[in-house]
Amino acid sequence: MTKLNQIKTIAILTGGGDAPGLNAVIRAAVRTALGRGLTVWGIKNGFGGMVENKMMQLTDESVAGILPRGGTILGTTNRDNPFNYPQTQAGAVIYTDMSARALNNLRQAGIEALIVIGGDGTIKIAGEFHQLGLPVVAVPKTIDNDIPVTERTFGFDTAVGVATDALDRLHTTAESHHRVMVLEVMGRYAGWIALHAGMAGGADCILIPEIPFNTGSVIAKIKERQQRGRQFSLIVIAEGAHALGGEISIARIVEGSHEKVRLGGIGEKLAREIEELTGMESRCTVLGHVQRGGTPTAFDRVLSTRYGVAAAQSVLAGHFGIMVSLQKNRIIRVPIADIAGKANNITPEDELLLAGRAIGVCFGD
Amino acid sequence: MTKLNQIKTIAILTGGGDAPGLNAVIRAAVRTALGRGLTVWGIKNGFGGMVENKMMQLTDESVAGILPRGGTILGTTNRDNPFNYPQTQAGAVIYTDMSARALNNLRQAGIEALIVIGGDGTIKIAGEFHQLGLPVVAVPKTIDNDIPVTERTFGFDTAVGVATDALDRLHTTAESHHRVMVLEVMGRYAGWIALHAGMAGGADCILIPEIPFNTGSVIAKIKERQQRGRQFSLIVIAEGAHALGGEISIARIVEGSHEKVRLGGIGEKLAREIEELTGMESRCTVLGHVQRGGTPTAFDRVLSTRYGVAAAQSVLAGHFGIMVSLQKNRIIRVPIADIAGKANNITPEDELLLAGRAIGVCFGD
Amino acid sequence: MTKLNQIKTIAILTGGGDAPGLNAVIRAAVRTALGRGLTVWGIKNGFGGMVENKMMQLTDESVAGILPRGGTILGTTNRDNPFNYPQTQAGAVIYTDMSARALNNLRQAGIEALIVIGGDGTIKIAGEFHQLGLPVVAVPKTIDNDIPVTERTFGFDTAVGVATDALDRLHTTAESHHRVMVLEVMGRYAGWIALHAGMAGGADCILIPEIPFNTGSVIAKIKERQQRGRQFSLIVIAEGAHALGGEISIARIVEGSHEKVRLGGIGEKLAREIEELTGMESRCTVLGHVQRGGTPTAFDRVLSTRYGVAAAQSVLAGHFGIMVSLQKNRIIRVPIADIAGKANNITPEDELLLAGRAIGVCFGD
Amino acid sequence: MTKLNQIKTIAILTGGGDAPGLNAVIRAAVRTALGRGLTVWGIKNGFGGMVENKMMQLTDESVAGILPRGGTILGTTNRDNPFNYPQTQAGAVIYTDMSARALNNLRQAGIEALIVIGGDGTIKIAGEFHQLGLPVVAVPKTIDNDIPVTERTFGFDTAVGVATDALDRLHTTAESHHRVMVLEVMGRYAGWIALHAGMAGGADCILIPEIPFNTGSVIAKIKERQQRGRQFSLIVIAEGAHALGGEISIARIVEGSHEKVRLGGIGEKLAREIEELTGMESRCTVLGHVQRGGTPTAFDRVLSTRYGVAAAQSVLAGHFGIMVSLQKNRIIRVPIADIAGKANNITPEDELLLAGRAIGVCFGD
Repeated sequence: MTKLNQIKTIAILTGGGDAPGLNAVIRAAVRTALGRGLTVWGIKNGFGGMVENKMMQLTDESVAGILPRGGTILGTTNRDNPFNYPQTQAGAVIYTDMSARALNNLRQAGIEALIVIGGDGTIKIAGEFHQLGLPVVAVPKTIDNDIPVTERTFGFDTAVGVATDALDRLHTTAESHHRVMVLEVMGRYAGWIALHAGMAGGADCILIPEIPFNTGSVIAKIKERQQRGRQFSLIVIAEGAHALGGEISIARIVEGSHEKVRLGGIGEKLAREIEELTGMESRCTVLGHVQRGGTPTAFDRVLSTRYGVAAAQSVLAGHFGIMVSLQKNRIIRVPIADIAGKANNITPEDELLLAGRAIGVCFGD
Repeated sequence: MTKLNQIKTIAILTGGGDAPGLNAVIRAAVRTALGRGLTVWGIKNGFGGMVENKMMQLTDESVAGILPRGGTILGTTNRDNPFNYPQTQAGAVIYTDMSARALNNLRQAGIEALIVIGGDGTIKIAGEFHQLGLPVVAVPKTIDNDIPVTERTFGFDTAVGVATDALDRLHTTAESHHRVMVLEVMGRYAGWIALHAGMAGGADCILIPEIPFNTGSVIAKIKERQQRGRQFSLIVIAEGAHALGGEISIARIVEGSHEKVRLGGIGEKLAREIEELTGMESRCTVLGHVQRGGTPTAFDRVLSTRYGVAAAQSVLAGHFGIMVSLQKNRIIRVPIADIAGKANNITPEDELLLAGRAIGVCFGD
Repeated sequence: MTKLNQIKTIAILTGGGDAPGLNAVIRAAVRTALGRGLTVWGIKNGFGGMVENKMMQLTDESVAGILPRGGTILGTTNRDNPFNYPQTQAGAVIYTDMSARALNNLRQAGIEALIVIGGDGTIKIAGEFHQLGLPVVAVPKTIDNDIPVTERTFGFDTAVGVATDALDRLHTTAESHHRVMVLEVMGRYAGWIALHAGMAGGADCILIPEIPFNTGSVIAKIKERQQRGRQFSLIVIAEGAHALGGEISIARIVEGSHEKVRLGGIGEKLAREIEELTGMESRCTVLGHVQRGGTPTAFDRVLSTRYGVAAAQSVLAGHFGIMVSLQKNRIIRVPIADIAGKANNITPEDELLLAGRAIGVCFGD
Repeated sequence: MTKLNQIKTIAILTGGGDAPGLNAVIRAAVRTALGRGLTVWGIKNGFGGMVENKMMQLTDESVAGILPRGGTILGTTNRDNPFNYPQTQAGAVIYTDMSARALNNLRQAGIEALIVIGGDGTIKIAGEFHQLGLPVVAVPKTIDNDIPVTERTFGFDTAVGVATDALDRLHTTAESHHRVMVLEVMGRYAGWIALHAGMAGGADCILIPEIPFNTGSVIAKIKERQQRGRQFSLIVIAEGAHALGGEISIARIVEGSHEKVRLGGIGEKLAREIEELTGMESRCTVLGHVQRGGTPTAFDRVLSTRYGVAAAQSVLAGHFGIMVSLQKNRIIRVPIADIAGKANNITPEDELLLAGRAIGVCFGD
């Protein structure tokens, strides 16, 4: 960790996909920094704005009223990497290293340190800039809660809330109409949203990327419920979940012949399989982007504020090359280097997973 | 209209798809009828339960606490028609007229009149029973608001609310990420949900079944916004909307070769087309069943209660063969026969459609 | 009604208390007017800003993103009347007629017509300016839905929704804890919020200003429920409801001796009386300002948009001296003069009131 | 800690005030216990039901669908202590020790162990029964989050969410109308709800029982904001907050003369004081019971489920005399004896309190 004092001017940047709470982090970092006499710039549209020199000064006025708003006032993109920057020349896109230009832009503006709010990819780039001498503090951002060494990321609680609301709505229809309702939620590599929303919404099966599922187990669960007089079932499935072996066959054939067409995802495939194997009407809903926008929950606003304050305080303390992180419910600082190559997945010993097993939830295994 | 007095025992039945407010209608009808000394039965699982003789008595206790709950305590199905009733014999499904058996079941139970809550199909069957001498009162039910001679059906306000919440969430992401967000909502033949949610959520384009859309108009709207510095657009599209001519071409090819596979709907196709033609990231969200379940809004609970009371009062007044209906904000009674073959579609003179045009919404024409 | 054509520049003003949907009205009026080539000014802080000459130009940019936001971007006040305008001179507040100055300010800015969004008092002042030759179009605004000749005002649906949510929350506690829960809602002269929220939230008693209540009837209802095994009751009371005769005695003594101190309102008094007379724990919640702020419901956003478009279209059509109004679910125009001295109260024949009686709600009579 | 094995029959009881999540705890404990072959009884209406022998068997069916519902299916009361049990004899209430009768009732029903869900008082009684030989497991319940040795109690997140929603609504009105809005929230001894909701809702001042407030500091904050052009302020105050010295004088005189009358609380008093000292319109809203009822947030449903599973597993493991507790985000078991005489208050070093100070929130000191 680098130590620097006497920093007078900083910038903030948001990168990657949307997550409710981004504005709350910005507000907290800006207000903390301004309160200690710093000048704060916002870099627009992620790392692209650093290359293109698009900035706006952030004052107390800039961050007024943004706490409850989704999105980011700075704009963002999840495409531009200054170390491999796309440029259109003579009709073709070529990629060049524009990191020196990006650094120079900051230098020209008198910016001495950078707070970067983003996911895996964004933080990796932040680490590379740190290696080049730019003092950097990172704030982890992911809806999926899959960033390592931090227990809970902002936006996750909101996503879980949206998915749970959806489950509550599907529940009444499933029950009245004797249906199997499948809800596909976000989570490519980690099943945190599915696990939490499934437990909160009373799902009968929760299928996550960490546990390849056996369609037979899901069918058995549905039938066991039928025998107890429950003529419906609720299933939550993470978009990244996958079946063991060759069970979801109908879908695979289609997929094989049209690989480039985005067909229905795993949830749709599972619903079709269930309908075929049980004869019960089955429907799939894919929540998609609704999970990652809009006003954050109170929990996420508080968590975002804590992250934002902690990031600014790390700058003020002269600690750089770190990511602020939540561990055992406290915000700590961990070296950016420490998170490389790690993941945050649900383990077989996860307490909530075990609680699910205790109350009879089927995890497809 | 038949007139009957001295009715002592009635039954209630819910048919067709789910709609928030079904329980509120049941509660209001039951409480009104019990308050006037009637005995009330509930027929389970729609017309199927009438054939299979599945009933439960409905008391004040049965309807306690159900006002805010989605679904229907009676259960429902959108498949069973007693006049053409499916039965499995020797492995094959054959269809028979079981209407006499159904009527006999009611007679055995002493049921003298029937309140039927359902959509087009359900009300048509109710009308046929009425022809056979069963005194019937119908309550219109459709999320899509497309039942003729009634201005507003219960459940519609809730569906619009859910879709509007989704738009609010997509809005912040679209704005921060410079995206085109497409939201596909319910509405096969009528675009009411799309029109109302689009207007409530500030959509830039609203595409409805009543107006075949020109993709070029949509693209022009998106580009006109870009030129004014708005790097994002929100589009609401009804599931039953369709493009003029041959514009949505990519999707059609795929569909041609795999007709039986439910591919992405019109929203997904439009998003792909927009991305290709504008170069802007475009995403589609399909709300699906989330729109038709769960707790009804206050508006829908009030409307449902009005319908339920009016239905029971029509029974008490001895007026049968009618559907209760909302016209000019008052509940009236219209002969079931009068609704046959009619539809409730958005006309070119619709006030809200014209209001949309006045504020610059693109309707694809 | 005055007719004027060729108007080029207009202004908009919001007056009186807050109501969800004000911004949606502004947005719709501005977009409609801009779309037809007008220049639009916003007058800040109600009629006070007209006297003090505080204005801002309203562009497409000014109204971007305000549709879902509560409050008004123009600011407002419910105190300043230009015809009787408060000014501090030598420590004392004196009141003068500043209407000429207010008119002159508009004239200087080239403003030829004014859209006024406000309640009774605000519209009355608008009418006086119209008499003085300023072309005026009014838009009715009241949470309480008590403006005459218009069926439904924007903000009302949101207020009812907030009150219904509160009832849903109180319901579960009342039921689990065997309590009487009293919810006091807005409505000084008209009981619309109480009636609609009470019906939507399943209240056992609904007490409104239009029907002076007999505490004995309320107690009888609570006891009748107890005898049927319902150990709890929910009561909604409008702030302007009042008891017949001398029943709410404890409270009155206190009030007599400390008239200037705002004691608990009618809801608190009723809760104390019920606890004393039934021995059941009784609690009162006063929702207050939570009912009139925040994001509007989808219904209110649509209604506000309709009002805003209609107001601008009335200006474009050269019809002034009118208020846009909702009648039989259509927006029409009525002369401002026609609303003077009228009220919009719940009548004994009101359909929803009668529906309440039909399902056994006690109205205190 | 007592260790017992071979337990076959247990009971569950809920005591004290309402908290969203009670049903979710019951459901999780019942399903966990049933899944391991136990028989489970529910004791109705808290410890009163133990004395009066009111019980119901809890099956899988009993807990179906209760996860999202507020309240408790078992009923509860916050008045009855079996060790000092109220009974009416000859018109007078006398208190007797009925603990032996209560224990005998359990014994007769074959109940070998008891899960008690409740607050301080309830858990204290549970501890006394444990001393008398009844194997007991306690689950902490408090909206206020003020139970010692547990970081987060269920229901707290929901209460904070409700209060934050209210702040969001008040915010828009305050801003549009240039007002000071005071929101009084629950928290007699601990300011957790005020702190979290205040931080989530962007309050300018947060006043908590742990920090006696100086009205002058609050006024200074409001004026400092006015000077920066912010014509409004938001204040969150816990019901148990109190002013230093003699500042809130108007109210105190009234209170002195009518001690038994519940006057407006501290929030109302503060609002009046602010209005008098700043001349700004100030309004107070008291959320009251709305904070502790209704459907729990997803977070609280997950937390409740974890508590319920952990309680049942402690029974299955034969560990009694303990309370399940959340520490460093894990559920552990602590001896009931260890919590006696302790509290969970906000300390000056609390991270969120310090974050509030960093972003400029006034805590009244």
